Amino acid sequence: MLNETAVKLGKTRSTIREIFEYGNKRAAEVGRENIFDFSIGNPNVPAPDAVQDIIRELVNTEDPAKLHGYTSAQGAPENRKAIADDLNKRFGTNYNENQLYLTVGAAASLTISLNALTSSKDDEFIVFAPYFPEYLVFIEQGAGAKAVVIPPREQDFQIDFDTFIDKINENTKGVIINSPSNPSGVVYTNETIKKLAEILKDKSNEYNHPIYLLSDEPYREIVYDVEVPFVAKEYDRTIVCYSYSKSLSLAGERIGYILVPNVDKFDEIYAAVCGAGRMLGFVNAPSLFQKVIAKCTGMTSDLSVYAENRKLLLEGFEKMGYSCVKPDGAFYMFPKSLEPDDRAFCERAKKYDLLLVPGSDFGAKGHVRISYCVKTETIKRALPLFEKLAEEYRK
Amino acid sequence: MLNETAVKLGKTRSTIREIFEYGNKRAAEVGRENIFDFSIGNPNVPAPDAVQDIIRELVNTEDPAKLHGYTSAQGAPENRKAIADDLNKRFGTNYNENQLYLTVGAAASLTISLNALTSSKDDEFIVFAPYFPEYLVFIEQGAGAKAVVIPPREQDFQIDFDTFIDKINENTKGVIINSPSNPSGVVYTNETIKKLAEILKDKSNEYNHPIYLLSDEPYREIVYDVEVPFVAKEYDRTIVCYSYSKSLSLAGERIGYILVPNVDKFDEIYAAVCGAGRMLGFVNAPSLFQKVIAKCTGMTSDLSVYAENRKLLLEGFEKMGYSCVKPDGAFYMFPKSLEPDDRAFCERAKKYDLLLVPGSDFGAKGHVRISYCVKTETIKRALPLFEKLAEEYRK
Repeated sequence: MLNETAVKLGKTRSTIREIFEYGNKRAAEVGRENIFDFSIGNPNVPAPDAVQDIIRELVNTEDPAKLHGYTSAQGAPENRKAIADDLNKRFGTNYNENQLYLTVGAAASLTISLNALTSSKDDEFIVFAPYFPEYLVFIEQGAGAKAVVIPPREQDFQIDFDTFIDKINENTKGVIINSPSNPSGVVYTNETIKKLAEILKDKSNEYNHPIYLLSDEPYREIVYDVEVPFVAKEYDRTIVCYSYSKSLSLAGERIGYILVPNVDKFDEIYAAVCGAGRMLGFVNAPSLFQKVIAKCTGMTSDLSVYAENRKLLLEGFEKMGYSCVKPDGAFYMFPKSLEPDDRAFCERAKKYDLLLVPGSDFGAKGHVRISYCVKTETIKRALPLFEKLAEEYRK
Repeated sequence: MLNETAVKLGKTRSTIREIFEYGNKRAAEVGRENIFDFSIGNPNVPAPDAVQDIIRELVNTEDPAKLHGYTSAQGAPENRKAIADDLNKRFGTNYNENQLYLTVGAAASLTISLNALTSSKDDEFIVFAPYFPEYLVFIEQGAGAKAVVIPPREQDFQIDFDTFIDKINENTKGVIINSPSNPSGVVYTNETIKKLAEILKDKSNEYNHPIYLLSDEPYREIVYDVEVPFVAKEYDRTIVCYSYSKSLSLAGERIGYILVPNVDKFDEIYAAVCGAGRMLGFVNAPSLFQKVIAKCTGMTSDLSVYAENRKLLLEGFEKMGYSCVKPDGAFYMFPKSLEPDDRAFCERAKKYDLLLVPGSDFGAKGHVRISYCVKTETIKRALPLFEKLAEEYRK
């Protein structure tokens, strides 16, 4: 008699959450410092000091009735303008505030966009493995459409274009990409993005309807020694889904945006975004943090800890014989498990209190996700344990 | 090719929003101080000083990575516990933190609850006119169920039980009430609540399935000289949908909760709430404001301004011959328009720059909503204009 889909979703904790709870249990037994929890993508680097300073300033100087009051549903115009200006400055684009719709974070950006686009239960959205698992929930249970998964291209986690082209059909409404990627840390190359754009243009023409690219970009600012192509410049039917969760370490505050492309039928698409936000119960993005992000454009948290952690892990793993596609962004890496069964491998890692997430959860078995947004000390102390784990497989 | 329902919802601004925009236009022409905008329910009384103090304290003392980091999806346990303890203290109940699910405000509380309960497109939810118009959007477009409207009981805006009983059938999944009411300000009496509970018990038995009561209570703390019955004590299948938007003047910050009743199948209902939150893209309620409300339990904004405004309006209206059901709570009143066509009446009021919302928008024509969360000075200067408007109808 209840919504059984919702009941099931509410009861099946994600594997990540299971591991997190297991970690808490073990921490109570052997001490938090002896648990090496690489399961959760909660930034451990604090928000920049400027965030705290701006919160203080806003609280000290603004009229509280206004500061904490409703904004327009799409976000206060001046906050949207600050974001558009920043994008234009950084990417040489020409956006205006009326193309932005502020959201309660990336998950909301995605559910709103997916609901805005979905007009039939036959609509299909393509995702590339390894993928963020909630995409399937947002597409299927959230928007009532179909998720089509393209298997991983194991050698580099770029796109397997042959399979991708095969899977596009008249029902294809959109494609979700996530570069830098959760879980692999891989950044799509310029070549990948250009080829993707070309195919989407061709296929939109072939099927005589637009195929939208949903670019989920919470890790856009977190990269190491590479440039992340600004996807929306390459393909003009790109809907950017952004969040400040990772770049400003504000994951709990739920603040992000949707950038609607200025293409034909712009008014309709933007209206659909507003309408979807309204029917899902999003009234406006949190007002205080709207102002905070508007005043923190262009900033990021100190990313040097992630860079250091990444270097230590990659160097260590190479010596130990772990094989890993080079993660150029985010704070994840996705090495191969040392046995084909990634779940068995993760169980074995638990012996050393190394908590890893099986790749199967991201549609790529034979791998594990390591979330390295932890203290560098944790990495240093974990490396000998990874070596012990590898040692078991050398026998 | 887009979600046409969403496009339409996005394009049709609510009447309230239309009036608000009209007010801005007029303000630019004749000055903000000459516009008497009674259209918007945005609290004008600031949040209590304690809110600002607590934000400062949290920012000054807490680890920002934790303060702004993810919490569990249902909200941090200590924050939920603080709310449960406060409810128990005030209402003599026995709730615990595992019955609470923190949300991004009342709209989210409602869409999540409605999605959690809806198992078929034939499911019906009953609402009582005059109603908050977004209920229809949340039920029909948001949850894909049917809204059944009970016409207003004009003399007192309590429940027309005969019609209500007639409309309950085997598809009735739930009933939404909102006491104190937006738009009428009316508080359901103890007698109304007890009779409602009795009918719902009988009908749940008759149809052999639970009928849930969704009690939307953002105005619970805003009352004048009466007590608001705590509905969940009278009917044990009550799902309380709460928001701090009005009681703490935090409408823009989006913070509220769902209280799940400890009845048979509790685990299923709570799981359905968690699952619905997940599929709609709500990750967790904003983390900073979770802590703020946990530390502000039992507080409200200074309600004396609303009390004064209400008194002035009621006394003035009585003299002028406006007829109005006594509004015992919220910051709304819902007098009869001085001609049967409430839209025509609102148009005529515009001549005096009195901006009112037609009752037709709330399912009760022949009335207008006055939102009196404005400066008392505004009320004082508006009263002679209401008199001039009334004068027109005396000719």
